[in-house]
Order: sequence, then structure tokens, then C-alpha cells
Amino acid sequence: MTGSAPSADLDETTLTDATIASFGDTPDPRLRNCLSILVKHLHAAIREMEPTLDEWERAVEFLTATGHTCDDTRQEFVLLSDVLGVSSLVENINHRKSSGATEATVLGPFHMTESPRRELGASIDEVGKAEPCLVTGRVLSADGTPLARASVDVWQADEDGFYDVQRPDVLPPGNGRGLFTTDDEGRFRFSTVVPSHYPIPTDGPVGQLLLATNRHPYRPAHIHFIATADGHSPVTTHIFVADSPYLESDAVFAVKSSLIREFQRIDDAEESARHGLAGPFAHAEIDLVLEPARGRESA
Amino acid sequence: MTGSAPSADLDETTLTDATIASFGDTPDPRLRNCLSILVKHLHAAIREMEPTLDEWERAVEFLTATGHTCDDTRQEFVLLSDVLGVSSLVENINHRKSSGATEATVLGPFHMTESPRRELGASIDEVGKAEPCLVTGRVLSADGTPLARASVDVWQADEDGFYDVQRPDVLPPGNGRGLFTTDDEGRFRFSTVVPSHYPIPTDGPVGQLLLATNRHPYRPAHIHFIATADGHSPVTTHIFVADSPYLESDAVFAVKSSLIREFQRIDDAEESARHGLAGPFAHAEIDLVLEPARGRESA
Repeated sequence: MTGSAPSADLDETTLTDATIASFGDTPDPRLRNCLSILVKHLHAAIREMEPTLDEWERAVEFLTATGHTCDDTRQEFVLLSDVLGVSSLVENINHRKSSGATEATVLGPFHMTESPRRELGASIDEVGKAEPCLVTGRVLSADGTPLARASVDVWQADEDGFYDVQRPDVLPPGNGRGLFTTDDEGRFRFSTVVPSHYPIPTDGPVGQLLLATNRHPYRPAHIHFIATADGHSPVTTHIFVADSPYLESDAVFAVKSSLIREFQRIDDAEESARHGLAGPFAHAEIDLVLEPARGRESA
Repeated sequence: MTGSAPSADLDETTLTDATIASFGDTPDPRLRNCLSILVKHLHAAIREMEPTLDEWERAVEFLTATGHTCDDTRQEFVLLSDVLGVSSLVENINHRKSSGATEATVLGPFHMTESPRRELGASIDEVGKAEPCLVTGRVLSADGTPLARASVDVWQADEDGFYDVQRPDVLPPGNGRGLFTTDDEGRFRFSTVVPSHYPIPTDGPVGQLLLATNRHPYRPAHIHFIATADGHSPVTTHIFVADSPYLESDAVFAVKSSLIREFQRIDDAEESARHGLAGPFAHAEIDLVLEPARGRESA
């Protein structure tokens, strides 16, 4: 059986219902519902914009160029979703009732490669040119119970603002990335460098959009985390560096005050030695608090 | 100057206004307005869908695959716009006040290559395996004045339902395509074959969407036209073959009754000889009536 047949002579007032009806025999009710919602709002947008044929052609060209910019290490559609506030909106919707849990924020376009598995305490900085930074914390359940054997996936830009995949000629693959497992007390720790604020990639269609709209491309300095633990909803989040520029105008609308952390400088030889670090270092701490799994969020 | 800074801690209720505000310094007021409309409706769709993170990731993957399917002769985003009823909606909006003029319909995804310039009366069928078809007509202004030296761009699928670019191994480039100039009386004529109904390309993401939604991929048999003339709004349209299947359920919502034409079979040796055709042929006729140019439509 095929979807209800659209008739001929559809016009502005009948096209939307006819298109929605054409999806009426979709076996998956969730897909059917999402397509109905998409068609309704997309048509409403078109009706309000009244694009010329030339404008619509340019929109198609923009989407095509965005697709062509995507490859194994670049996700321009995620970037587009980010700068349009959609990624942040989806995150907010999915973490609506998470009081007590760590606030979520966007995944971003740089989680394209697998983080290398590393031992607790290892460094994710494989270059070693900047002052070290120690990051420590715990994965906890909402009631404060430490979650042993939780997984903590970490990725970040380096002190110059680049992810490994952006400078494959200079940065070893996996630089700034690590996959850790918490210890018996739910603790994790790794050394790294304090990341820099950076511009999102501006050499593609999304960069052209920001240029055409007088928007700056910068994100405040941050480290990405995904924490997962059995029986809990995972959280995708960042910690932001407290004194970073652009905390008030993040290009992707992702800053949450609760995720801003002081990266405290520690100039104490004994402390450095205790962590196997040579000389002064910065220290940041975050506890990643997960909600027990409920329905769809745990999928 | 950059757009108004979004603050931190944006939530479901504040994100949309913050995103719209971020585009507030866009120099081009049309772009600024379109982005505001886009963000408003896109966010409304997301709010109503409440996609899980996994669902949003799948949407991004779908858009990426759609972009990757586009190349020099394939336009999967146009196809997506077509099956979502958007192309037809944009056409309708742009030809709202065209009473008297030929009704417009969608461009479709196969107008990717330039049509070869041909003499009036020439054949656009370079294969010659099917019974010929003669297409005649005039380009007229809305008041009935013939438009000499008007341009008529024609493209169509062959008797098996394929455009040249779909079967580059079998069909010569330019097969089924022609760019004609009307004579002193605004007339055009060419020979061809009666096109077949055909499925839109189903081997890409749009085909997967139709499959997942139990929609058939067929379009009724048609010939595409773009007529342009000095001082007039161009028209992009089709003629549909009167007895074709799928006239009532076109996969791209493009059928207009006023564009359906009898392809009359003429079995008359004298008539065939008069048109330089060997044996019986089909004959279809359409006058392409253009409105005098007004404002944005002539751009």
C-alpha cells in the first residue's frame, strides 16, 4: 500500500495537508509523526519567507556545499545545527528534568574519531609544549553514590585552539583525547593542557554564513566530556575555563554557568611531584553527576 | 560589530530569541529576515518533535548522505525538496498572480546540464528507437502577442523513463534536451519520443525515505520546459501525457490539470512527410504564456 495519493492542482492552501497525507502509511508511527511535524513547520517557514526561485536554489546550493564539506573528520551539518541554536535546544529538551545531575551541553562537531583508551592519570597531551593541566573529578549518581567503572570520554582543543583532526600534519591522532574508566571510588584524573578559546571552522559554508551575518565564530575555552555508567543516562557536557573570552557570546550557545571552572595555577614542587608533573600546573575539577536511567533517555 | 551576544544559561524558552538576536547585525535585511523565520520555525519543529540525541544524530546523518549523493549530474537536495512538497510550494508562491499565464510547476533535479542549442524542427531524440513524437507550440505574452526570439529550454526522460545523465553508458549527453529559439510568430517545434512515467532516483537517501514511508517513487510522464523572453517573467513548467499512470499521485506533487495534454497519434503519410518523419507519430501542443515582468519575479 502506498501513502494517500496527492491529487492534482495542489495549491498553497492544500499542498501541506497533501504532503502530510502522503506519509500517512508510514509503518513507524514515530517517523510518521516527525515527518508531519517537519512538513508543517517547513511549509510554514516557506510561506512566511516567500523565497524567490533563485533564493530557493541558493538555499539548496548551501545545503549541498554543507554536505560536501563533511568527511570522516569534519561534520559541517553538526556545525550548522550548532550555530542555529538547534544542538543546544535538542540538548536542553533531552535534559529537562535533570535537576541534581550535571547540566548537559552540545556534542559539537569534533567527536568524529574514537578517543584512545588511556590509564587514569595519563596525559592526553602528546605534544608537551605547554604548561600541564591536571583535571580531576568523580562520576556520581544523582544521590551522590560514586560510580565505579564508569566511562569518561574526553576531547579538547590544544593550547593554540586546535583539535588533532584540524592539524593532522602537526598533531598526533588522538592528541587531546582520552577514554578513561573510573576507579573504585568513581574517580578519574588525567593531565592535559589548558585549552584555548578558538574559532569554529570558518573555511566552509557555516563560516560563510557567520561572515555574511556579522557573527564571530569563537567558542570559549572548554574541555568536552561524555560520561556513561550502567543504569544511568549518559551526559554529554563541557567544562569551561573561567577566565576565557567569549563565555558571554559562545558561537554555539552552549555555555552553562554551572559548568564554568576555575583552572587554578599550582606552583608547589611537592604537589607537582605527587602528580608526576614537572613544575607548576593548572588544576580543574568536575564531578559528573548522572541520573538513573528513565525511559527514552537511556536508549 | 558582531551580532548581539547570546548570554550563558540559555534554555528552551530563551534559546530561540537569543539565536535570532545573534543574527541581528546581518547587513542584508532579506537574509536577516529569512534567518529569523528559519530559526523560529526550525526551533518550533524541534520543540514539537522532541528528538532524542540519537534521532537528531540520524537526521544529521541523513542530511550528510543527501549532500554526499549530490554531484555534477545529481541533485538529491532538490529531490528532497520535491518529495517534501517544498519545491511545488515555492513554485506556487512565485506564480500566485499569474492568471492568464501558463501555470508553473517544479524544476526537478534533472536540469543540471546545459541543453544543446538546436534548430527549430530538430529532434532531441538522438537514439531513434521509438515512434517519433512532434511537439509544437508558441510562446505568447499574456495578452496573446506572439513572442519572437523567445528561448524554450526542453528536457525529458526517454521512452524507458531515463534522462541522459542517468544512463551515460547508453544515452548520448544531451539526449532528450534542446534549447530552441522561437520564430517570427513565436512558434517552436521539435521532434522527440513520448516520454515514459518513471521512478525518481531511489538509490539515495530520498529513495530510502520513500521506502521507509511506503510512498511510491513515480512521476507521471512529462516534458519539462523553461520559456524566457525579454520583458517577461520566465516560466518553468511541464506538459503531462494525458493517459500516463500516476497523474493522480505524482511523487513530487507537481501535476496541474491545465498542463495535461493529449499526445494524439497521427497515422497519415502526408502529415508525416510534412514534418520530415517516417511513419506514424504522436503530436502534442502547448502554448507557453508569459506574464510581462513585474518586480522580483523577473530577477
